[in-house]
Amino acid sequence: MSTYNDNLHWRYATKKFDSTKKLTQEQVDELLEATQLAASSYGLQPYKVFVITNPALREKMKEHAWGQTQITDASHLVVFCAYKTIDESYVDAFIDLVSKTRGIPVESLKEYREMMVGSIKGRSPEALANWMKCQAYIGLGFLLSAAAQANIDACPMEGFDAALVDEDLQLSDKNLTAVTFCPLGFRSSEDQSAAYKKVRFPKEEFFVFKD
Amino acid sequence: MSTYNDNLHWRYATKKFDSTKKLTQEQVDELLEATQLAASSYGLQPYKVFVITNPALREKMKEHAWGQTQITDASHLVVFCAYKTIDESYVDAFIDLVSKTRGIPVESLKEYREMMVGSIKGRSPEALANWMKCQAYIGLGFLLSAAAQANIDACPMEGFDAALVDEDLQLSDKNLTAVTFCPLGFRSSEDQSAAYKKVRFPKEEFFVFKD
Repeated sequence: MSTYNDNLHWRYATKKFDSTKKLTQEQVDELLEATQLAASSYGLQPYKVFVITNPALREKMKEHAWGQTQITDASHLVVFCAYKTIDESYVDAFIDLVSKTRGIPVESLKEYREMMVGSIKGRSPEALANWMKCQAYIGLGFLLSAAAQANIDACPMEGFDAALVDEDLQLSDKNLTAVTFCPLGFRSSEDQSAAYKKVRFPKEEFFVFKD
Repeated sequence: MSTYNDNLHWRYATKKFDSTKKLTQEQVDELLEATQLAASSYGLQPYKVFVITNPALREKMKEHAWGQTQITDASHLVVFCAYKTIDESYVDAFIDLVSKTRGIPVESLKEYREMMVGSIKGRSPEALANWMKCQAYIGLGFLLSAAAQANIDACPMEGFDAALVDEDLQLSDKNLTAVTFCPLGFRSSEDQSAAYKKVRFPKEEFFVFKD
């Protein structure tokens, strides 16, 4: 475990990527699998993960993010996109998946289904959208953690015009909206911020112990 | 890396903990450090992490979560609590922390401060609260990832009455609200769900590649 946290100390929001260094296909596959394995509420995974290497599309994404160069310099651009709404048909598709994966009849999952449908219907449209965004952030946490352990750099970014990104990725007609970017790659040796001391609120402020 | 994802396959939302098994202090410290090292927007860490071992308080938490036994059976109960609002004074405290940690004058961070204040002021109170919740979910992702690598079980839970939890943890007067529970400990050998096949939407549905 000490090595684990050493790797988390090593990671930082990379400001400048080395544009000549690319992830291997194996590295990409491993990181995406870690992301796919992220926990989500009820297991519903109410988001999709875009993986963008297309240069022209990356240029557009950069334009929509105030020219931040990580978007085009990194090896891969991951974009977490949450569903804007969700309904019973999505739950049914998920129940079908559970049934097929575990080889159990759909009927035996009726209670589970009702619980999920109730949870969805009990939220306002806005609360529902926010809840799905939150699930995507768990995925981001899994991706960042996995990348750090593989000594792959990343830079989570929220600073972009979501409306323009949604348009260029044609998300709206897929009921999706862009939540966060995560360029992946390798830090440039010129990125001085790699050496900055990590800033965290001290343990006695960040944690509250109730013994 | 293959071992890394094996550990993510090993993890699951633990339904029944072995109440006789406790994390060592070293394990607790390692997992909390991993959580503290989670990324957050601008590095603001707009949430706190409660770590509850007190049995009476755990009983109350269980009552507020429809009697789910993981809350009292697990070794430790972690509760992620997001700030309800945030203002310039919080940003100033953070800027002060950056200044002290990195040994640089507050004045040199003026632009960074203005950017954060602008980002905060540009959001509605509701959007601001949701954004802070999302940051806490990154923390949850870091905690779950770290726990899996240490073969420590966890069960992220959103199913609780936040108003009652907030009251019992006296969160309201601290400008906080409970976002998610995460009991930590070790699975009971009686937990049959540990053997259930993991359900995930297939890669070709969950990922969208733009080459």
